[in-house]
Order: sequence, then C-alpha cells, then structure tokens
Amino acid sequence: MTVYSFASSHAPLPQDVLAALSDDVAEWKHSGFSALELPFTGKDFADILALTEHELRALLNLPEAYRVLFLQGGASAQFALLPMNLLGSAPHCDYVQTGHWSKRAIKEAAAWCDVRVAAVGSGGELPVPCSWDTSPDAAYCHYTSNETAEGLQFQCYPEISDVPLVADMTADFLTRPIPVERFGLIYASAQKNLGAAGLTIVIVREDLLGRGRSGIPAPFSYARQAEAKSKVNTPPTFSVLVACRMLGWLRGCGGLDAMAERNGQKSAKLYAALDGDFYRCVASPGSRSPISVCFRLPDSALDVLFVEEARSHGLFHLQGHPQVGGIRASLYNAVPECAVDALVSFMSDFKRRRG
Amino acid sequence: MTVYSFASSHAPLPQDVLAALSDDVAEWKHSGFSALELPFTGKDFADILALTEHELRALLNLPEAYRVLFLQGGASAQFALLPMNLLGSAPHCDYVQTGHWSKRAIKEAAAWCDVRVAAVGSGGELPVPCSWDTSPDAAYCHYTSNETAEGLQFQCYPEISDVPLVADMTADFLTRPIPVERFGLIYASAQKNLGAAGLTIVIVREDLLGRGRSGIPAPFSYARQAEAKSKVNTPPTFSVLVACRMLGWLRGCGGLDAMAERNGQKSAKLYAALDGDFYRCVASPGSRSPISVCFRLPDSALDVLFVEEARSHGLFHLQGHPQVGGIRASLYNAVPECAVDALVSFMSDFKRRRG
Repeated sequence: MTVYSFASSHAPLPQDVLAALSDDVAEWKHSGFSALELPFTGKDFADILALTEHELRALLNLPEAYRVLFLQGGASAQFALLPMNLLGSAPHCDYVQTGHWSKRAIKEAAAWCDVRVAAVGSGGELPVPCSWDTSPDAAYCHYTSNETAEGLQFQCYPEISDVPLVADMTADFLTRPIPVERFGLIYASAQKNLGAAGLTIVIVREDLLGRGRSGIPAPFSYARQAEAKSKVNTPPTFSVLVACRMLGWLRGCGGLDAMAERNGQKSAKLYAALDGDFYRCVASPGSRSPISVCFRLPDSALDVLFVEEARSHGLFHLQGHPQVGGIRASLYNAVPECAVDALVSFMSDFKRRRG
Repeated sequence: MTVYSFASSHAPLPQDVLAALSDDVAEWKHSGFSALELPFTGKDFADILALTEHELRALLNLPEAYRVLFLQGGASAQFALLPMNLLGSAPHCDYVQTGHWSKRAIKEAAAWCDVRVAAVGSGGELPVPCSWDTSPDAAYCHYTSNETAEGLQFQCYPEISDVPLVADMTADFLTRPIPVERFGLIYASAQKNLGAAGLTIVIVREDLLGRGRSGIPAPFSYARQAEAKSKVNTPPTFSVLVACRMLGWLRGCGGLDAMAERNGQKSAKLYAALDGDFYRCVASPGSRSPISVCFRLPDSALDVLFVEEARSHGLFHLQGHPQVGGIRASLYNAVPECAVDALVSFMSDFKRRRG
C-alpha cells in the first residue's frame, strides 16, 4: 500500500532526495567517507555549506545585504533568541498574535523584552496588515506567516515601513516567492520544507547585527555566527546536506513560482472537498492556509474515527494540533498531488459511509 | 585505497552502523516512510527515543535519579546554558582551567555567573583533583574531562564531595566506564562517539533541576526539557537515531569496559611511536589522552608536510587545532585499530625519509 504523511511536525521528502541521501550516508562522492563523517572544518562540508547558501540565495534572489545563518535549536529557540539578539536599546518589540505559535513566540520573548501586541486575530480570521498598530520605536514587529495549529496563513506579505519586519516562516518557508527586502529577519526550522529536523535557517539584514545583549550563548549570537559563517561551533552537518538536496530539488521543480502554483492546486482540491456541512473549515477564506488545511467533522468522535480509518488507508498523521483538535492535513512542498487526491477520495468515501 | 579519518571535530562511524543508517534513510522498518520523515510526535520516533535512552542507561548503569536530555546546540551552547540553568542563588561557579575548551567554557559562563577558577593546568600537565581549590558555596564545579586541542585527559575521575561536579565529556563520553554517581551533570555533543552533529546529551541529577533563571529559551531549559521528555520542540530526530544505532554498536562491542581496553590498546601503539625526538609529545604521561593524541615534529614546516603526505596515504584530518598547531590524531571509539596501525606505519616511513 502506498502511504502518505500529512504530518505537521515533519514533512515528507521527495523519493529522489531520499535515494540520494541514502547513497550519501553510504558514501559521500567517492570520498571513502560517509556524509555523516565529514568534519565541519574540512573542504567537503565547506563545499556543501557554500552550495546550500548559494541555492537558497538563488531561489530567493536574496539581496547582498542579507546574511544566511545555519543554526540549531528550532524556531522555538528563536522565540527567546530574537529579543536577545535584536532588542538593542529599543523600549519594546511589537508582536502580532494570531494563534498557537505566535502566542508561544510572545510568551518566550516576554522574558527578554517588553512585548507590545500590535494586532490580534480571532474567529479564524487574520488581522490585515494595514490594521496593525505598529509603533515606530519598536525593535521589530514579529508575525507568524502560517499558523499551523489553526490553519491560517497571511496570504499577502505585510509591508511595514517604520520598523524591521520579523517573520516566523517555519511552515511556509519556500512554499511561494518571498519579497525578502520587506523583512529585517526571517526564520524557519528545516523539518518542514528543508528536510530534516535539527537545522534552523535565519536570514537577517546585516544592519540588524550587533544589537545583541551580552552573554548570548555563542552558537546563538547572530552577530558571531554571521562573522564565523555559521561555524562558531559544529553545525548540524547532515541536516545542512539534507537542506542542500531539498533546495536542488526545489530548483529542479521550477523554483518558488512553480511551487506556489503547485501548492495552490493541491490545497484548492482539498478546500473544495470541505462542504461546510460534514467537513467544516474554521478559517475564513481570506485567511486559509494552503499549507495547513484544518477542518472538523460534525463531532469529535467522528474526528477520531476519521483519523483511524484514514491511517488504515495509508493516509497518516491527520490528527489536528492537540490544543485545537479536529483534522489537519499539512501540504508541504514535498507532499505530492496524488496524496491530496487519495485524501479527497477517502473523504468522499468516509462521508458516504458515516455522513 | 582505504581511507581513515582522524578528525577531532567529527568521528568516523562503524561500517555496520552506516549501512543500517543508509537503509533507514531509504525506508524505516518497512513503514513506507524514511527515517528522515518520522514526525517527532509519532510512535516510531517515540520508540527510537525510548530505545536510545534505554541503551544509554544500560551502558552507563545510570541511577534512576538522573535524567537524560536530548538537546540541540552542541556542547558550546551549554557553556552559557549551564550557569543559566544551574546557578540558582549561589554566589559563583567553580571552573577548572586546563586548555582551549575549558577556557571557552569559562568565557561563556562568565556572562551569567561569577566564575571562580579552582585550578589551572600548565605545561602539558593537568592539576590533580585533590589539588583543586573548590568552594562549598559554588553552584557547581566544572571541568573538561578531555582537552582535545592539547591532547590531555583526566585519566581518573575526580571526587568532589561538597558541590555538584559538572563535566564536559564531549570528546571522551562513552570511551570508558563513567562513575555517574560522582556527577551532578555530564554533557557531550554527539558527533564524537554518538555519531552525528546536531545532538547534545545532557545527563543531569534530578535535584539540580529547577535552579534555572527565568527566560531560558524553552528548548534549553533543563527543567522544561526533563518535564517534556526532550520534546519541548522538535528534537533532532535523525541524529537521535544515529545515536541509537551507535549505542547498539557499542553494546555489541562489549560495552564501556571493552571499549576502554580497545581505546587503551589503540593509543598505546601510537604513543609508543612517539620517540620524544622526531615525534614529540607535549602532554606529560599522567595527563595524556587516549582519545586525542597530539604531537609535534621538529619544525612546523614538517608538521604541514606530514599532514599532506599522510593524506595522500589515505590518513585524513591529522592537523592539530588551529590555535595549537602540530599533529593531532583523534582516536574515538569507532576509529579502528587498523587505522592506528596504518598511521604508525606511515610515521615510521615518514621519519625514515624526512628524519
């Protein structure tokens, strides 16, 4: 039976990428060594790191003024590390509160800065950026581009002129083109669209380096990592290689425009199957995420049954976020369209039998 | 040509482990998914994590009062995170300063606590623990069990009765039995004897949890990670699997006693080849590390030539630490005895030709 993963916490990887990585573990490019054995101080890994950055810069058409940092700790670590690195002498930081993940970001940041909430979303609707009450003296304005637990996405990128815009793009990084020049900093952990857990990408505008407080653990100091080209200490070498191969695959798929079109097609099929009656979508149309599609059945017992039966049909990890419930299908870049077709077909069958 | 890595920053892995991991990347246990795709919230990864902890506890005969944390960031991140987590209301922390890595630990800790230097090593000799001037009101006493840059190891484990003993065991973790009950906390990054970069093991006595200051980034709070069983956020899932397979291999080799004997044999062969004339060892015999064997040739030009020629003989990554120079052969668990034989043979040949 063909199996598909719709997990939110970890995306699937394309078969070609997995085959290449399996070979890399066996032997890295006729070197006699496994890709897992490469010292981060050697030329092989230097080449991998340089290629990874090159691929990322090319895909994003990244302006020179931005530095790419390859860190550890996950996006959750950045929640506290952001104000530690960026507050400087500013009186506070602005945050847009729209769901589970932005709330976690706010809670963690509040230990290191005064948090000012610039906007709040509610009822499955995201606050439009022109309504955000940002303050010009904030160190930055932070938002979560895709709330995975609630299935929300800012479908357009905000334009904030007075303070650096900071985005947690973990869930939808590289799923569509990004106007990087609007941002002061973008961060994303890799296990969604860059392959393997253990790597966190931080893209930061150079002029924001040097605002860090003293004592930031060295591997988490943006300024020190920028200076050391992400080699303050041992980077997560294999996760970087996985990211490198994922970026090559993305390029081969036609880049971010092609990926956005593909992701739009996938999610459109699934949203079309949500009839508003048996399958209810909480997110309002203008805030619906093409990456995290969340819906509910008429009662929670049916939600549980749906997840169980789906699993027996090879459709895995469809349960919603523990604190939200319902069903969640995550459609990261590497989820193939045939997975969505299989899910939609199962949904139709399930509704016929249980509706 | 058979190639061997003597890299300090990243150890080689046994062929059996690499073959198994290559298969795991292709498919995890007939699941239809790659090991790289397993969500950390699912049963497959839960089983891997539980088995990894089980293997580690069995190897170390770990008392119940100790918790095992699977973190990110590397040992270097712990340098600052240690006082953030353990200082509590103590007036200072004691540190033993013996080389490059303990100096880095001290420098980073000093931003978060008053550092009191309890002992200093010099001239290739480590200060014997009975000479350490520890203070009973310190939050802990920290030492580096193996200084990789200088090639030094505390060959016996200290016994400190009045304050928790904390050790950076990154380089020699699991290379010999460890009397864990003497320690308050042990930490080690995984890329030496546990396989892959991106994972940091922290073993901490339960009574030391809860001394953390507020605002520690959640993924780095010992107390929160202990409570969440290392799942505050996404752990470095594949690096945990690599560690799991390395631990299984270690058990199959006969455990820590067998590994210590094997490591002793390997290093004895290499130290016997250091004649004190052409190949000079700086570390005094009582402080020599069986894991990091450092030596110098009559001049630095010969050091460079040695490293280059060794490479052409398949003996890789023998250059010393950039700030120390000379030659360094790292003999981690998975470096086979035949690698040492090949190195000793090359050294004899090189001396004959260049001596």
